[in-house]
Amino acid sequence: MMRERHFDEELSDLKKRLLHMGSVAEEMIHLAVKGLVEQDESMAETVFSMENEVNALHIEVDDTAMRLLALHQPMATDLRLLATIVKMNSELERIADLTVNMCESTHFVLGKAAVKPLVDLPKMAEIAEGMVSNSLKSFTSKDVVLAQKVLDEDDKVDNLKDKIFRGLLTYMISDPTAIDRGISLILISRNLERIGDHATNIAEDVIYMVQGRDVRHKTLEMEKRKYKM
Amino acid sequence: MMRERHFDEELSDLKKRLLHMGSVAEEMIHLAVKGLVEQDESMAETVFSMENEVNALHIEVDDTAMRLLALHQPMATDLRLLATIVKMNSELERIADLTVNMCESTHFVLGKAAVKPLVDLPKMAEIAEGMVSNSLKSFTSKDVVLAQKVLDEDDKVDNLKDKIFRGLLTYMISDPTAIDRGISLILISRNLERIGDHATNIAEDVIYMVQGRDVRHKTLEMEKRKYKM
Repeated sequence: MMRERHFDEELSDLKKRLLHMGSVAEEMIHLAVKGLVEQDESMAETVFSMENEVNALHIEVDDTAMRLLALHQPMATDLRLLATIVKMNSELERIADLTVNMCESTHFVLGKAAVKPLVDLPKMAEIAEGMVSNSLKSFTSKDVVLAQKVLDEDDKVDNLKDKIFRGLLTYMISDPTAIDRGISLILISRNLERIGDHATNIAEDVIYMVQGRDVRHKTLEMEKRKYKM
Repeated sequence: MMRERHFDEELSDLKKRLLHMGSVAEEMIHLAVKGLVEQDESMAETVFSMENEVNALHIEVDDTAMRLLALHQPMATDLRLLATIVKMNSELERIADLTVNMCESTHFVLGKAAVKPLVDLPKMAEIAEGMVSNSLKSFTSKDVVLAQKVLDEDDKVDNLKDKIFRGLLTYMISDPTAIDRGISLILISRNLERIGDHATNIAEDVIYMVQGRDVRHKTLEMEKRKYKM
């Protein structure tokens, strides 16, 4: 019995660390976009140091999950929970990576003549950040409806990405000296799109964990063939 | 004893399926680049249909790995092997996704006036493809030296990405009507860079599997702060 309780405590502790990692990743998105909008490069330094924390947590969560699998050989629900934690861990680490990329692209935008107003980038960032937040909430509360909402939001992010691309393309053609900054903003919008994708992956993992229903790759065939750029 | 042998057979079968998935992903990289170089859009259709196969394998490998974990509760070496398979499975699925993105970007390059010769893109593709191939070989033969070689190749890919970016930027500034195609080629080079990253992840997983030594996130601090675009 002691061993059982110990396992439950370790699992609960692991969940807490994963959710802490999630909140750090969320904050990193927020700071990366704030640095762009407020033209404040000091945000990047904060994001870079937070990435070190996320990287340490990534290895720690992975190792703990493997140790729990090996030592306690959990069955059914606990096994599915551990598998979900391992997958979410990898998604969160990638989200943190993408915020670092965003800061790197921002570096090329700042300190130069202002490009066209950022228009839809902050809006896109807000939706992507909300998706990450809701995907984590849906995990905590095993809320499949909320997880499904995350999946639905992904279309909005994709549409904004297309809109931003078209806007910036027109702008760059009219002012070729702004091409480098325009490309930086396009890359930032793509990083946000990928953050939305990772939140979608988490939401899909949550649905699978709760319902045992696999929603991955279901809509790919329709979506992908649109040749969107 | 019967149960043991059954497990070993299932594990060996799972490895085979993973490696098959890897060879499909490799072929997808090859075809995606061939489509660009030879201006042959029919390659994209083949890549799209191969992606369906990879997606099916992705779910199958994941499910089988979880079932083996749950039913057989493997210890030590087998557990580490299963964990590596689960991680590689996710890397390979992402590699396949990226080849689809490459075909989508190629669509915007083809059928329009030829952009500047592709110069280093085929070379970059060759290295990235080789990295994927070697990362899979290092897994099969538990070859840590080969895995380390994959890690070393990643710098070459990053340098080529920077070189391609600078070349295309200069080109687009001199001919703004080529901006959309220039950006497509930049995006393709970024997809190749990410394919190299995923091969690197696989190589790191192999080293961890064989040596129990974690090489993830070790060089990040130095590498990332360079503000490369």
